[in-house]
Amino acid sequence: MPKVANQWLQDVLRLLYKRRRATRTDIIRTTGLNPASVSHALRLLLDRGTVLKIGERQSNGGRPRDVLSLNPEAGYFVAVDLEGRSIRFALSNFVGDIRYRWEEDFEPGEPVRVGKLTAGVSRVLRGLDAGQRSRVVAVGVSYPGLVDPEGRLTAFNLGWKKFPFLAELHEKLHLPVFAAHDKHSCVLAERWLGCARDHRNGLFVIVERSIGAGLFLDGKLVNGWRGMGGELGHCIVDPDADDLCGCGRRGCVESIASSVNIVRQYRERSGEEGNDHLCVTDVFERARRGDEVAKAVLDRAGKALGRALSYAIQLLNPEIIIFGGDIIPGEDVLLPIVKEEIARYTLPEVLSGVKITLSSLGLDIRLRGAVSMAFRMSLRDADLLEKICVPVLTGQQPSMPRQSDRGAGTAAELLLAAPRTDRN
Amino acid sequence: MPKVANQWLQDVLRLLYKRRRATRTDIIRTTGLNPASVSHALRLLLDRGTVLKIGERQSNGGRPRDVLSLNPEAGYFVAVDLEGRSIRFALSNFVGDIRYRWEEDFEPGEPVRVGKLTAGVSRVLRGLDAGQRSRVVAVGVSYPGLVDPEGRLTAFNLGWKKFPFLAELHEKLHLPVFAAHDKHSCVLAERWLGCARDHRNGLFVIVERSIGAGLFLDGKLVNGWRGMGGELGHCIVDPDADDLCGCGRRGCVESIASSVNIVRQYRERSGEEGNDHLCVTDVFERARRGDEVAKAVLDRAGKALGRALSYAIQLLNPEIIIFGGDIIPGEDVLLPIVKEEIARYTLPEVLSGVKITLSSLGLDIRLRGAVSMAFRMSLRDADLLEKICVPVLTGQQPSMPRQSDRGAGTAAELLLAAPRTDRN
Repeated sequence: MPKVANQWLQDVLRLLYKRRRATRTDIIRTTGLNPASVSHALRLLLDRGTVLKIGERQSNGGRPRDVLSLNPEAGYFVAVDLEGRSIRFALSNFVGDIRYRWEEDFEPGEPVRVGKLTAGVSRVLRGLDAGQRSRVVAVGVSYPGLVDPEGRLTAFNLGWKKFPFLAELHEKLHLPVFAAHDKHSCVLAERWLGCARDHRNGLFVIVERSIGAGLFLDGKLVNGWRGMGGELGHCIVDPDADDLCGCGRRGCVESIASSVNIVRQYRERSGEEGNDHLCVTDVFERARRGDEVAKAVLDRAGKALGRALSYAIQLLNPEIIIFGGDIIPGEDVLLPIVKEEIARYTLPEVLSGVKITLSSLGLDIRLRGAVSMAFRMSLRDADLLEKICVPVLTGQQPSMPRQSDRGAGTAAELLLAAPRTDRN
Repeated sequence: MPKVANQWLQDVLRLLYKRRRATRTDIIRTTGLNPASVSHALRLLLDRGTVLKIGERQSNGGRPRDVLSLNPEAGYFVAVDLEGRSIRFALSNFVGDIRYRWEEDFEPGEPVRVGKLTAGVSRVLRGLDAGQRSRVVAVGVSYPGLVDPEGRLTAFNLGWKKFPFLAELHEKLHLPVFAAHDKHSCVLAERWLGCARDHRNGLFVIVERSIGAGLFLDGKLVNGWRGMGGELGHCIVDPDADDLCGCGRRGCVESIASSVNIVRQYRERSGEEGNDHLCVTDVFERARRGDEVAKAVLDRAGKALGRALSYAIQLLNPEIIIFGGDIIPGEDVLLPIVKEEIARYTLPEVLSGVKITLSSLGLDIRLRGAVSMAFRMSLRDADLLEKICVPVLTGQQPSMPRQSDRGAGTAAELLLAAPRTDRN
């Protein structure tokens, strides 16, 4: 058998992950590899059980073509999402489907110990038998905040300041750990599994407590010089405004259009200043019912966001803009204002044809992005690629619970959402 | 002799073009190639005369190291700059030094014929003997406007609408033709020969009749989805303004801060509306002398530009911003306002360490960028790389005039600027 180049294996595995299923002809056409290389790679991957034949597709006049997919049990990945008020963990199979979720709470204000992270990882690995454990390929971590060139993370929600989390995790877990900023995790999830699979230039805009954007240009994530790009939320669009931003300045988009600031403005203007239970979906709901204060607040927020996005669109000429986060349930009351303002402020020839859409990947988006990143990085590592291609034993069937079940960890709460299998 | 991979040749030639001179050790360290590959590549390039030994450098304790450079006569490139009111042509040697310049005027309002371009190219090739002619590698074209996916150019200054200029030029010239948008030519010139040689993330901002930006991120030119990124000039920074932009909207940066609009505002406010001879350097000069109207106009222009740049900096996290065009002579009166406004509108942690500087490549910048692009693209083409590595005959010395001389072409005017040899 001829030697199979790692590059061919990578290209074939990547395509099957992204497309879910494909024929040899699809693979040749999409990867640009020559037919012989694809055949060599497929023979090896089918021999090892990394790729499975799952059916046949009739072709015009010729013999039926085998439909191929990745073997879901050829490898496992652990995903960790460090954004927010708790830490989320997930176990994913080889096709990026999340099989099991876990969540660890932590005390706000105190630095999160690494033990929290290792405990969560152990928890999601618990359902695997020894054979499956040997097939765990890597851990993908989605982090908020900022990593310095030495790999130390500063993240306020975790109470970490220049904390060498990658080195610590790698040492404790004895597994390769790959990490991406959470805005990049979102981009990777959309690029590999969501609505950006066919787009090479775009923005993922997160509107939550803060506002940021993950950029991908010419098919690559854009990091900027020191990884600090995508600060859409801190474009000052209303320099005369009183709205104070978390960054200490006034009139940033974030100070006007983030979910907490939408709520703050509504409280201030409606006289419900004491209503601590009000959240952004309430403001959306009140606007729907015709509440003039809610409508005015959303009008201001939508315009601020639309204006900042017009600058991003003219500078970057994206093909797609995907919104995620708290803006999603406000699709009907906030997004039209954003779009109208984008149209008002953007050159028509640059805006023409740009898709503006909502993420459909839900709460799992960062976990799924972290898995996709770990998958991608593992293919590039010769040792991990070899591990992936170790023969899958027959009879090694998934024994994991397909629904998460409730565990007994201290201060732990299981996420009850069923594994998402929908794909758009 | 072992086979020398094209990749090694490319890497060595590219480094020597960019660094001008280097030792074998420098090449190994910078390219990351293994020492044996560099030795094989250098042996071939020295044998053929593509690379020359130009001296020795003492090393600590060891034997002196050979200092190497490209042979300036190993190849020639023609550059064409289509921006502006005339077409500029240049002949460059293999190290990117411009040896000869030519300029062809054209009638405004009428579509420029391809004959104008071929005549200009012929003109700059005229000084070469037959041996040198055989070493002309490629033509690099810097174009304004927009090229569609079929390679057809729409450029108002040339009167072209979807004109297939690349195909036409290639057919007429019998030489490979490579083209880049003029903002990318500027970026390439700065990246290969100017102040961005050591930077991978930055913006080149052109302030002339229009305002645009060339972006490079992670070491690559950014084009956007349909090549329409970098529209810094059309960020609407003052939506309530009356200033009408060429794009038909009001309050764009360009309508406030481009050189013609600086002059327009000065004329309107000073009552010198009939003064057709006034140009932007006059406004700079009057501001220097304390003219309050000039100072107010520059204050408004500088603030508009600074504000739009703050958005670009926060989105892209560049390491360097290079200004070019008509802003250069206003360095002392306009740039401080721009910088102050950038500081006011940009997150300090993103702005920290960003270099803001002026281009030093002068009027030739687009020509030199076009040469650098043609050089880079030619290395990637196996046939052209082979042509470059054809042995250079000894005695084939530069016979071209080192200063441009005045020609007799109809409606043609020679550029009198001496070839620039300064490098920063």
